[in-house]
Amino acid sequence: MLLIKRFHSSFQRIAHVGKAQTGDSFSVKGWIKNIRRLKNNIFLDINDGSTSGRFQIVLPRDSHTQKLTSGTVVSAQGKIQVAPNGHYELHADAVESLADGQLQDGFPFSPKQKHPPEYVREHLHLRSRIDYFAAQMRLRHKAQKIIHDYMDELEFVQINTPLLTTNDCEGAGEVFRVQPDSEDLLKQMSRPNVPLDQSYFDHKVFLTVSGQLHLEAMSYGLGNTYTMAPAFRAENSKSPLHLAEFYMFEAELVHLKHLEELSGFIEKMLKTTTNRLIETSGQDLQFCQASADAKQDLPWLSVPWPVLTYDEALDTLIKHKESFTTPISQNEGFTKEQELFLVAHCKAPIFVIDWPVQQKPFYMKVSESNPQRVHALDLLMPTVGELCGGSLREDDVSRLSSHPQLPKDLAWYVELRKFGGVPTGGFGMGFERYLQLLTGVKNIRDVIPFPRYPHSCRM
Amino acid sequence: MLLIKRFHSSFQRIAHVGKAQTGDSFSVKGWIKNIRRLKNNIFLDINDGSTSGRFQIVLPRDSHTQKLTSGTVVSAQGKIQVAPNGHYELHADAVESLADGQLQDGFPFSPKQKHPPEYVREHLHLRSRIDYFAAQMRLRHKAQKIIHDYMDELEFVQINTPLLTTNDCEGAGEVFRVQPDSEDLLKQMSRPNVPLDQSYFDHKVFLTVSGQLHLEAMSYGLGNTYTMAPAFRAENSKSPLHLAEFYMFEAELVHLKHLEELSGFIEKMLKTTTNRLIETSGQDLQFCQASADAKQDLPWLSVPWPVLTYDEALDTLIKHKESFTTPISQNEGFTKEQELFLVAHCKAPIFVIDWPVQQKPFYMKVSESNPQRVHALDLLMPTVGELCGGSLREDDVSRLSSHPQLPKDLAWYVELRKFGGVPTGGFGMGFERYLQLLTGVKNIRDVIPFPRYPHSCRM
Repeated sequence: MLLIKRFHSSFQRIAHVGKAQTGDSFSVKGWIKNIRRLKNNIFLDINDGSTSGRFQIVLPRDSHTQKLTSGTVVSAQGKIQVAPNGHYELHADAVESLADGQLQDGFPFSPKQKHPPEYVREHLHLRSRIDYFAAQMRLRHKAQKIIHDYMDELEFVQINTPLLTTNDCEGAGEVFRVQPDSEDLLKQMSRPNVPLDQSYFDHKVFLTVSGQLHLEAMSYGLGNTYTMAPAFRAENSKSPLHLAEFYMFEAELVHLKHLEELSGFIEKMLKTTTNRLIETSGQDLQFCQASADAKQDLPWLSVPWPVLTYDEALDTLIKHKESFTTPISQNEGFTKEQELFLVAHCKAPIFVIDWPVQQKPFYMKVSESNPQRVHALDLLMPTVGELCGGSLREDDVSRLSSHPQLPKDLAWYVELRKFGGVPTGGFGMGFERYLQLLTGVKNIRDVIPFPRYPHSCRM
Repeated sequence: MLLIKRFHSSFQRIAHVGKAQTGDSFSVKGWIKNIRRLKNNIFLDINDGSTSGRFQIVLPRDSHTQKLTSGTVVSAQGKIQVAPNGHYELHADAVESLADGQLQDGFPFSPKQKHPPEYVREHLHLRSRIDYFAAQMRLRHKAQKIIHDYMDELEFVQINTPLLTTNDCEGAGEVFRVQPDSEDLLKQMSRPNVPLDQSYFDHKVFLTVSGQLHLEAMSYGLGNTYTMAPAFRAENSKSPLHLAEFYMFEAELVHLKHLEELSGFIEKMLKTTTNRLIETSGQDLQFCQASADAKQDLPWLSVPWPVLTYDEALDTLIKHKESFTTPISQNEGFTKEQELFLVAHCKAPIFVIDWPVQQKPFYMKVSESNPQRVHALDLLMPTVGELCGGSLREDDVSRLSSHPQLPKDLAWYVELRKFGGVPTGGFGMGFERYLQLLTGVKNIRDVIPFPRYPHSCRM
């Protein structure tokens, strides 16, 4: 008995062929990826998007099969048999051509060639037809699903933090501004004392850089919360680790008083969800790693992740300062090169904690024992450097309200602490960087379906 | 044995009290919602955000308990006992005040009063402290989780469709425009022949109104896909069913040739996921319904959903035209009043299919038998009217490319069909409207954490 889920359609998916038995009936629809014509038979390798593997269909050669070419969409029915190489194949009774591939008429990808990601990226709308990119999209889906499952098990509430906001959480000014495109609408909605371009919301409105402050507001009534949502940065960066629109996973934990609870949570979460992903999507993961010429082992899964104070990390860097092309700064955090050095030096991911107060934003909790330090952490990983940033939040009303960098308009944020405040802490993780860490894909533009970056917003 | 999940913290959640047994040790942290002082004992009703229920803590009255007031955050440990009303309560050995409520000092909500949603909405940052709103947020979380689970079971791939886009899928012009806030950045990135305000992306860029076209591009390689993401409309609407930023669930199904397959999919999906939500979150759902003075039964779960053609629906409306305050138009679809009439008339949700071609967008498939009609559907529901809109997609290259409303710059969309096209169809559902349908909450602003609407974008 073949256990394959069906709903609206009378076909099955190639990903499930492995559950079939010799002689089972099987029905499939997909794109021909490769075609070989021998004397009596014709062999089609097809793919339907459900797996990185291809599935061989064998059918007798006749006049009907002459029209089949790479790129043709076919529907095939037949019986499962074992090929000489031990793989399942389909001995087809019937193959119908559903649509012509027309690859010769301007299709940018040659079926037999491996195209580099920069080239594939030039044809965004057809990128899902490239095996390694399709595998990346399935992996991205499963990674998200597993994170949602994990957080739900721990009873975190997912909050859809708003993308339109009047605040610039990080205070870096790298924001996109939003207003209606229609001048007529702006005029129709105009009000006295409101600049015309702000008349829709009566305010200057930005795309969010982080959902953290909104999460905190929700956590003050709901307990632990999280969000997995787009965030935006208006930077002119060509870096392979930056996008103008990217996904951030952010979590906020209540009644959290010690940074070690937060680093412990992050380590356990990343190890657990990654192990689950390897279990459910190992084939796609390996396919992505192989396509990126990356190593297939993830040694960081099986070692403890040490914690270094900022001062310890800085000392280590200074001891090895001749190794760096970038200067060591005590005002600006570490460079990517220095982050990766620390990870290599410790042979493990590391949490760097207790950062200088002037290097971190207003909302981080100042240390009682050393007011020059805040209870902040950065998680540094192989390949990508900083993956997570987090902190305890300042819950002392007077210290928070007198912070010189507290943005105006954040009276509400201070008020959260005033009326029954609870100590909270949390962190954010760039989701695309996590995918890069897993797959070794060098450019962040290749782990997101439609990358947006300087001078490029196609489709 | 008390089965309660713990991770970073040494406290438990009120939602799990029901699994405890008399005499079990229990430890809890939460906000005091109500307080009663009797001669020897003091009774605290507390809530920790995990449930709409409150949990009673009993402790002996002493000088220490004098400081406790509504709004105080407490930590309590003790033993579970059964109260005279049959509910579990905590006989506390120790209660510690973690933070002062200070409700008398400007807290907008009185603990003993039920505040109307319009008033609560004025204090967005503290809304999670209102029981019925917290219940709505938990329900929203679970509804999303259950939809993700369902789609994953059916092997749909979630695609994070981009929020920044150069296309206006629906062609209605109700879009928000996006550009960097920094003039300096725009100047630094300027290029010849590109207007300065477009220099970041070299294009006019909008916030998406729908992820459909992007989903289609991915489905042409991956098979079935879906997205659950924010969408935006720059409309000056005060309607209780519209927001400037809202969540859309959209799905695209491949090898779909008949509209009945799509309506069948939608009906089964909504019935299955809603029944699962009732199972997992029945208490929160009922609490939300009761708070909105809404009926608690959902009769649409247990009846089949009939299909009417547009012409049949129009005939029915014309026969009852004296019932409407709004005129019946043959050019503009039905009004909310007319939609709700049809639902009441049929005593069930209804799919209206086969719409006039001029009422629907360019991408919908024209009927072979009647070129004046497209294979489109609207799903009309009680309470909210239109909940879903969907269609088969035009896969005929020549008909699509000659469509007078085909936006320029969509050559890529036509090309999807050219190179191995597959027939697809799909639909979109306003997620907040679905929540309104479930809970009976009248204003859409009360089912989303941070509503954005004309003249309002707070926090």
